[in-house]
Amino acid sequence: MTGRFITFEGGEGAGKSTQAALLAERLRAAGIDVVLTREPGGTPGAEAIRALIVEGEPDRWTATTEALLVNAARADHVARLIRPALAAGKWVVCDRFVDSTLAYQGAGKALAAADLLEAHRFATDNLWADLTLVLDLPLAVGAARAAARGRPDRFDRLGADFHDRVAASFVHVAHQEPDRVRLIDATGDVEAVAAAVWRAVEPLLP
Amino acid sequence: MTGRFITFEGGEGAGKSTQAALLAERLRAAGIDVVLTREPGGTPGAEAIRALIVEGEPDRWTATTEALLVNAARADHVARLIRPALAAGKWVVCDRFVDSTLAYQGAGKALAAADLLEAHRFATDNLWADLTLVLDLPLAVGAARAAARGRPDRFDRLGADFHDRVAASFVHVAHQEPDRVRLIDATGDVEAVAAAVWRAVEPLLP
Repeated sequence: MTGRFITFEGGEGAGKSTQAALLAERLRAAGIDVVLTREPGGTPGAEAIRALIVEGEPDRWTATTEALLVNAARADHVARLIRPALAAGKWVVCDRFVDSTLAYQGAGKALAAADLLEAHRFATDNLWADLTLVLDLPLAVGAARAAARGRPDRFDRLGADFHDRVAASFVHVAHQEPDRVRLIDATGDVEAVAAAVWRAVEPLLP
Repeated sequence: MTGRFITFEGGEGAGKSTQAALLAERLRAAGIDVVLTREPGGTPGAEAIRALIVEGEPDRWTATTEALLVNAARADHVARLIRPALAAGKWVVCDRFVDSTLAYQGAGKALAAADLLEAHRFATDNLWADLTLVLDLPLAVGAARAAARGRPDRFDRLGADFHDRVAASFVHVAHQEPDRVRLIDATGDVEAVAAAVWRAVEPLLP
């Protein structure tokens, strides 16, 4: 039996990596074999591509080049880590996936969703998550948390308008695909958010 | 008035870079402003992506990841160098372009031509050369020349069957698109091949 694929999405500072790690821990405690990973990256090849994507000036790449690099990294990640893990019955918990591409390169940088969906089909043979958890947080709160972490990357340095469009895209996909995507209120403390995440995941347990 | 876009294609050791440089020189002598470039690469960003594509073991990337990296490099090259040069009335002479993708990742590595053409449309806003010169040489001759250069890359180390399929793809496209693509006999010496190239290019001169 194939494993389950769960993705976390949301803006900067929403707590995705913290919640992904907590979910992986809780699933392991429930006896499930879990692979915890992130995008862009997750494999040695994809991490090498990630360095090109996140480093440098905000205008280092055109939106189209950036979308192709993101999909190249994802193609490696899916072929070499995610699909083999799922085929072996493992669950995969991933910090960011295709909804981030639709939000950042689509809504944020004005690329057509149809082109991005086509690139995703080619890159991944059309792999979609069983469940996507969008961590929803007021922009100012997320930006403050991200700033406190330091080391802003190419995306942190884009303006408030950009991050507004990104946030709106995540809310939009949650309304468009209610079966796959759940909006999780991320304004509470870490434990409260983890509890909400677990309530969304529990129905998938064997 | 927009400039002309001329691409050179062919297998390893066919003399593409030599002939591209000779053509650029001859066009400059005719008073034309020429940009001489190559793929993958041609801009700082695309050269950084090129390093990922050509270095490492032959199986470093899946065919799909490789095709996305090639298109990412091409997107940067087209947006930042080729289209601005053509818009400024310059001619662009490029060592390899989309026909190499159809040959290496398509015929060579069994990706569907339709997917590669779609990626090319997205990456370049569907830019095609005005004239493509395929340097045609028996495989054994090209392989010997490439070997004499040393420093084999990921592609040089693929087998004879692979390079057979690549060569057949170049001949195929020359027959499919006779208006754009000319097959140039590359078995003669450098001057003879350059003369054949010039005969194909002359009709484009103002």
